[in-house]
Amino acid sequence: MENMEKIREQFPITKNKVFMNHAGQSPLPKQVADVVRKFVDDFSNFGTTSIEWNDGGKPLFAKLIDAKPEEIAFVENTSVGLNIAANVLRYLPSSNIVTTDLEYPSVVYPWLRKSLGVKVHYVKNVDGKILLEDVEKAVDDNTVAVAVSHVEYVNGFRHDLRVLSEIAHEHGAYLIVDAIQSAGAMQIDAKRDNVDFLASACYKWLLSPPGAGYFYVKDELIEKFEPPFVGWASVKDEVFETIDFWDIWNLKLSETASRFEVGSPSFISLVGATEALKMVLDIGIKNIERRILKLTDQLIDAVKDLGLKLQTPEELHCRSGIVNFKIDKPQEVAEKLKNKGIVISARSHGIRVSPHFYNTEEEIDRLVEEIKQCG
Amino acid sequence: MENMEKIREQFPITKNKVFMNHAGQSPLPKQVADVVRKFVDDFSNFGTTSIEWNDGGKPLFAKLIDAKPEEIAFVENTSVGLNIAANVLRYLPSSNIVTTDLEYPSVVYPWLRKSLGVKVHYVKNVDGKILLEDVEKAVDDNTVAVAVSHVEYVNGFRHDLRVLSEIAHEHGAYLIVDAIQSAGAMQIDAKRDNVDFLASACYKWLLSPPGAGYFYVKDELIEKFEPPFVGWASVKDEVFETIDFWDIWNLKLSETASRFEVGSPSFISLVGATEALKMVLDIGIKNIERRILKLTDQLIDAVKDLGLKLQTPEELHCRSGIVNFKIDKPQEVAEKLKNKGIVISARSHGIRVSPHFYNTEEEIDRLVEEIKQCG
Repeated sequence: MENMEKIREQFPITKNKVFMNHAGQSPLPKQVADVVRKFVDDFSNFGTTSIEWNDGGKPLFAKLIDAKPEEIAFVENTSVGLNIAANVLRYLPSSNIVTTDLEYPSVVYPWLRKSLGVKVHYVKNVDGKILLEDVEKAVDDNTVAVAVSHVEYVNGFRHDLRVLSEIAHEHGAYLIVDAIQSAGAMQIDAKRDNVDFLASACYKWLLSPPGAGYFYVKDELIEKFEPPFVGWASVKDEVFETIDFWDIWNLKLSETASRFEVGSPSFISLVGATEALKMVLDIGIKNIERRILKLTDQLIDAVKDLGLKLQTPEELHCRSGIVNFKIDKPQEVAEKLKNKGIVISARSHGIRVSPHFYNTEEEIDRLVEEIKQCG
Repeated sequence: MENMEKIREQFPITKNKVFMNHAGQSPLPKQVADVVRKFVDDFSNFGTTSIEWNDGGKPLFAKLIDAKPEEIAFVENTSVGLNIAANVLRYLPSSNIVTTDLEYPSVVYPWLRKSLGVKVHYVKNVDGKILLEDVEKAVDDNTVAVAVSHVEYVNGFRHDLRVLSEIAHEHGAYLIVDAIQSAGAMQIDAKRDNVDFLASACYKWLLSPPGAGYFYVKDELIEKFEPPFVGWASVKDEVFETIDFWDIWNLKLSETASRFEVGSPSFISLVGATEALKMVLDIGIKNIERRILKLTDQLIDAVKDLGLKLQTPEELHCRSGIVNFKIDKPQEVAEKLKNKGIVISARSHGIRVSPHFYNTEEEIDRLVEEIKQCG
């Protein structure tokens, strides 16, 4: 990546820490922090903001995942999007949904509600991988949806969404994707991969304040579903614009994905997310992905040299920004590293490292040196 | 109110504008802006914040409405809370809900969904007032809920929640309250008034950034309902604390109102809301209410002297921080005032004025003078 020095100037955190926990919550780049500060100053001084609001970053998120702006709704966080998807689908007593045993709870919980009465099938991982043949065996004609994280939070395993959607669609099921561990780090191609629903908050790899998230619904599905939650934000623009006279006798849902919005989103978070999306698109998601995979390559090699057991599959096509390796007393190691200014996290008997494009080879080296001394 | 000068120093907006549109979106007080700026600086420089997070202001909001912290959940906005209430209740084909023709759309829309199949009865206002005898006539044994705004957004009519809950409960119905136009301005006593569900965002009278809101569920009801949306934030604290090993095979819902939370809230907004709640409680909600009613008294007298028709009922017990009076071309008048630095809004063929405790008698006078010149 060119101009690494200039890029790092955009990340004040690099002066204070070796931060490689983007799978947790990310530091704000300078340009994001600046725009949020301006929002605060404006609202304090003038009760309104001069920041151009327009679309709240919808076209930018759409561009990032290869979708149309009309297919994007604001959501507070990823979980909200997944719950909308879970609640618009219909279930029979014989219905099932297919997920994996590597999942983040919010991907599974919406279907564990007693009132749905749906069976959840967990495809078991094999050495940290979810095999497509196992998914194929699990999905049947009673499957209503396949629900997965594009990238799994524990070990960074990356699913092949195109094949998953093929398997799901062959059985009349929908593909529902939690993209929080890939959006901003790995390429996402919702159209090519024929994804039905996809949600992501922006406070991890998308380098934004919490409270901003986007929810993608494939265009042909939008008008098929009545949203589970509705409010002033769900209705057609014409209704919104005539704010002087709300029509409270009829619910005229928007024909775009904004029908899944309910009320006032966290504008303060969305101005930050919009700015962060601009930055990510300017650098280019392909460049970011390439850079992240280069850094994690380096880390994986070093971890193997140390004789530590990788919990992340090594094959490039199922890798991501997350590397996990086994270690004794991971919480203690994480604490020791933290005291030395290195931020990673302890997950599943191991250490989870998640560097972003602005991290350096030297920072990976430094982490490895410290790990060596912990061992 | 004592120390008005000192209080106004806390509101940088007072140096730039006569801001009397707190029923819209409010300016941030200095202490709120400061704490949000600190959050941004910390997250940019250190990837974490030194602001004590703890409870996100739940005990403060609980204190404000006379409830217990365990009865409070975070919500992105008011509409989300109302939708949770609408979705946990069960409806028969004969069921109805009772609301009013003065309502904000988000109070009504959740029950206009086709999939619910519930009849909505709109109690008609009489000269801007909703009469209790009319509510009494509308509620019957098929009524599942009475849903109202504590203070109506158009003309500021304030309901008597105690009597409404009595009427609802006599018929086995629930009382669901949108408190966004009263929380931070008027006293709310959820316990005394026996309210079942109440929701409010904080970006109006509670002087906070958008994205922060609270949802109250009466304690005896919490465990009765399975939340419509669930995620990692819905489960018991014990599960949350052992983040290393999420239990994704069982949904062990929290026994507190946090079971109605889903995922990451907008922390950046909640640190602001916590600070704003501290300010409001320090000044005292009774003092704030008294001050607001004094300012609106003055405005009502002046409007009557001008011969303009009030759209706000005059009786003190059903008044609030909102005053609306009829005027020709309200949008044009609002625009003219805006150009002179006076912020109010046009609503329902009239001008809606909504002053807060830090506004002054002189500011009301100035508005009246300008209105006189418009007429």
